[in-house]
Amino acid sequence: MALRRVLALGTALGRRSCCSKPSLPPDFVEALSAVVGAPNVSTATAVREQHGHDESMHPCAPPDAVVWPQSVGQVQELAALCYRRRVPMVPFGTGTGLEGGVNAVQGGVCFDLSRMDSIAELSLEDFSVTVEPGVTRKALNSHLRGTGLWFPVDPGADASLCGMAATGASGTNAVRYGTMRPNVLNLRVVLPDGRLLHTAGPGRQARWVLGPGGCAGLATPGCTCSPAPHRKRAAGYDLTSLFVGSEGTLGFLTQATLRLHPLPEATAATIASFPGVGAAVACTVQVLQAAVPVARIEFLDEVMADACGRYSGMGLPVAATLLLELHGSRNSLAEQQRQTEEIVRLNGGSGLAWAEEPEERGRLWAMRHNAWYAALALRPGCQGYSTDVCVPISRLPDVVVETKQDLQDSGLTGPMVGHVGDGNFHCILVFNTQDPEEAQRVHAFTQRLGRRALAAGGTCTGEHGVGLGKRALLLEELGQEGLDTLRSIKAALDPHNLMNPGKVL
Amino acid sequence: MALRRVLALGTALGRRSCCSKPSLPPDFVEALSAVVGAPNVSTATAVREQHGHDESMHPCAPPDAVVWPQSVGQVQELAALCYRRRVPMVPFGTGTGLEGGVNAVQGGVCFDLSRMDSIAELSLEDFSVTVEPGVTRKALNSHLRGTGLWFPVDPGADASLCGMAATGASGTNAVRYGTMRPNVLNLRVVLPDGRLLHTAGPGRQARWVLGPGGCAGLATPGCTCSPAPHRKRAAGYDLTSLFVGSEGTLGFLTQATLRLHPLPEATAATIASFPGVGAAVACTVQVLQAAVPVARIEFLDEVMADACGRYSGMGLPVAATLLLELHGSRNSLAEQQRQTEEIVRLNGGSGLAWAEEPEERGRLWAMRHNAWYAALALRPGCQGYSTDVCVPISRLPDVVVETKQDLQDSGLTGPMVGHVGDGNFHCILVFNTQDPEEAQRVHAFTQRLGRRALAAGGTCTGEHGVGLGKRALLLEELGQEGLDTLRSIKAALDPHNLMNPGKVL
Repeated sequence: MALRRVLALGTALGRRSCCSKPSLPPDFVEALSAVVGAPNVSTATAVREQHGHDESMHPCAPPDAVVWPQSVGQVQELAALCYRRRVPMVPFGTGTGLEGGVNAVQGGVCFDLSRMDSIAELSLEDFSVTVEPGVTRKALNSHLRGTGLWFPVDPGADASLCGMAATGASGTNAVRYGTMRPNVLNLRVVLPDGRLLHTAGPGRQARWVLGPGGCAGLATPGCTCSPAPHRKRAAGYDLTSLFVGSEGTLGFLTQATLRLHPLPEATAATIASFPGVGAAVACTVQVLQAAVPVARIEFLDEVMADACGRYSGMGLPVAATLLLELHGSRNSLAEQQRQTEEIVRLNGGSGLAWAEEPEERGRLWAMRHNAWYAALALRPGCQGYSTDVCVPISRLPDVVVETKQDLQDSGLTGPMVGHVGDGNFHCILVFNTQDPEEAQRVHAFTQRLGRRALAAGGTCTGEHGVGLGKRALLLEELGQEGLDTLRSIKAALDPHNLMNPGKVL
Repeated sequence: MALRRVLALGTALGRRSCCSKPSLPPDFVEALSAVVGAPNVSTATAVREQHGHDESMHPCAPPDAVVWPQSVGQVQELAALCYRRRVPMVPFGTGTGLEGGVNAVQGGVCFDLSRMDSIAELSLEDFSVTVEPGVTRKALNSHLRGTGLWFPVDPGADASLCGMAATGASGTNAVRYGTMRPNVLNLRVVLPDGRLLHTAGPGRQARWVLGPGGCAGLATPGCTCSPAPHRKRAAGYDLTSLFVGSEGTLGFLTQATLRLHPLPEATAATIASFPGVGAAVACTVQVLQAAVPVARIEFLDEVMADACGRYSGMGLPVAATLLLELHGSRNSLAEQQRQTEEIVRLNGGSGLAWAEEPEERGRLWAMRHNAWYAALALRPGCQGYSTDVCVPISRLPDVVVETKQDLQDSGLTGPMVGHVGDGNFHCILVFNTQDPEEAQRVHAFTQRLGRRALAAGGTCTGEHGVGLGKRALLLEELGQEGLDTLRSIKAALDPHNLMNPGKVL
């Protein structure tokens, strides 16, 4: 358990083991049942344990009870009940987070929102749709099939869209389509005391900027085409942006109005191998600086490429690798492909063969999405922990090369994979959590990496969030006044610290 | 004064006339002088009156004193001083606002920040620059000459960039480059008590998404190229977005790190006349839906076209008019022009001649930027008031046509001009402020228009802000819980309500 203690700094206070007994008084559990019906409340150990952790290695901290509300009114009633009794509340979507966001470190009631799963108010004209928290990104895209629209934010996991809003998720398509932030237009929030807030106002569901926006993707230096991803609005503080990325600490996201995008006319994906990490990253920077409107540009170091190739049976060369995807009209795609090929060649890259059919591209991205499991397979019996720094693109080559050297010097297994188009990369550290010495080396490495990113003007977390594990680095990133300001806002909206306590701050 | 009373609802409480005497104790004024030096403090009536209003018709409300700090340290000391003595503070940039944002309705000290005007940390690689509040958009673009980069947000007036951040400004280029919101990366804020906050953390100056981004602008349906205007960051609540658009009510913006854009390789602008308002607006919607990455698409109704044509001596046809500008590579520009011409023709438009030389385009946009004065010239001796609604693009044609009819039915002079690509348009109401009956008709019209926009899922203010005049509509837009949430945040960050009191909330 040494490593868990080391990585999950701060979970110690009020930390609960998986074997803890529920501590809610029976009358309170009855009151919960009165709202949602007895079948929608559970205090069973297995259920509580299942809801006490996400996919990270932060120690399981089960809630005292799990409830499954089925309407926003029920969420409001349950919240009001918890608020009156000062019981902590933890929102739960799909449990696919990576920073312990759902772990009930102070117990309380877990609100599993997966049964609220309606999709409403699809406006093809305004490119918007409204989803409840049980709707995952794959479910939404299935629903959109045939409309010509899609929702591109793709963190890999089939996460719930409200959960993705809560953590400010992004993933492989963010370089072109943005993270959750510019793609959330309005949020219906249940505040800790049960009141209902619409962050952009009730009924203000539609995006009021423009239709499809954007342009075709014939990349030319000197052009910055923006599809104006923002609603234009100057009416009071931007509450939507405040709740995106708030990690469940300010309220329950019970509905999100999202911005949709037109499906590209044509898509092509490819794999390129490079003589070294530096060349692959330099190629990325040049592709961006040439303004190729790349949709995905993902980096694997040679360890990760080897692991992914073997895990998926695709047999990649053991080399620093880029996976690229281009979207556009047929004409613009050809132009993008020519430019990309030229830049890849200039950086000593090889192996470009374009996959244009959905099945072939699907195999390529499935391989990428399985990177986590491919990494774990390098050391069976060990566990994984993912870092998440993001740095300015001009600093990316140096930071990646230094980090690679640090990994080697530290004697750690940490294949690198990254959304390098955003300056964001992960080291998936695979190690023996029962070995305190190795755990300590992992901890020291993650701290050095976080500080290296901060020193480069970057952030300790590009997309996973702060959760339990990055609170110390958050202080270094924002400074004391920054953290104090976050705390003031938290105290104003959640005066009794009942919403997902112990996270972020 | 009837109209001023009507339009400036709520300024009555604590409202100060232009003749009010300063009410600060002499020792307090001496303390201000001790910080900035006596020449940088004034209690002269003329100076106070000059700082007691913006370009709107909200009644002048002079501060008790004006100070000119010259460093962030001085702003901190002055703020701490005012905080200890519970004296209201009002930030002042260029005074070019349109909703009474600088009017000192509760007196206090006006901080004129125009003498803090350094431009620093220009990073051509990361496309970012840092400016102090005295730097205007034109000054920045002069500074950038020769670098190949520019800052595109253009509200017309040569406003200070920090002021533009404070109001969430936008203007003619927003349809392509976004409003201030996605173009501000970090803010250095002096909090009401004098503490210093960096909204994205100290030293985190660079944008960490990508280089130029975007694509060339060869428009094709089915493509959404995003230049990823956002930093990718999941580290705590988004404080930058909270302060953008906070209208000076949460703190002083003493430095802004801005996102720059590459200058387009080629630019072409044109004027097209249409058989009616509906046709011009329908053309706009179709241009957007065809994903032409238009940089500017501005609408003038026939009254405004006539007024602008006469005021500028350009002699426009008396017809509903669109002014369009396209940016791109030479190739993509030609493609955009072909598409635009076709859509204009389909909507019965005529008169397309493309201006590609800077001088010619300059004349065209000077005509547009003088619309306010052209409108005032319609009724010499009268005053103007600009509405600012913004609606979803799908609702724009109906809302514009209904509003046009309402103007006629109300017997008002209110030429229409709008950033229709964003769904945002203004009626510049020109009327006799001394005529209570006409003032009442203006007030009733503005309320109906605001509610029409809200009913269409829009906002009462797209870019001017709430300021003094739209507080009642803000409640209708956000609902009570929304407004209560804004108030909680305000109270948390400014517990004594000293920062620009009486605005927004």
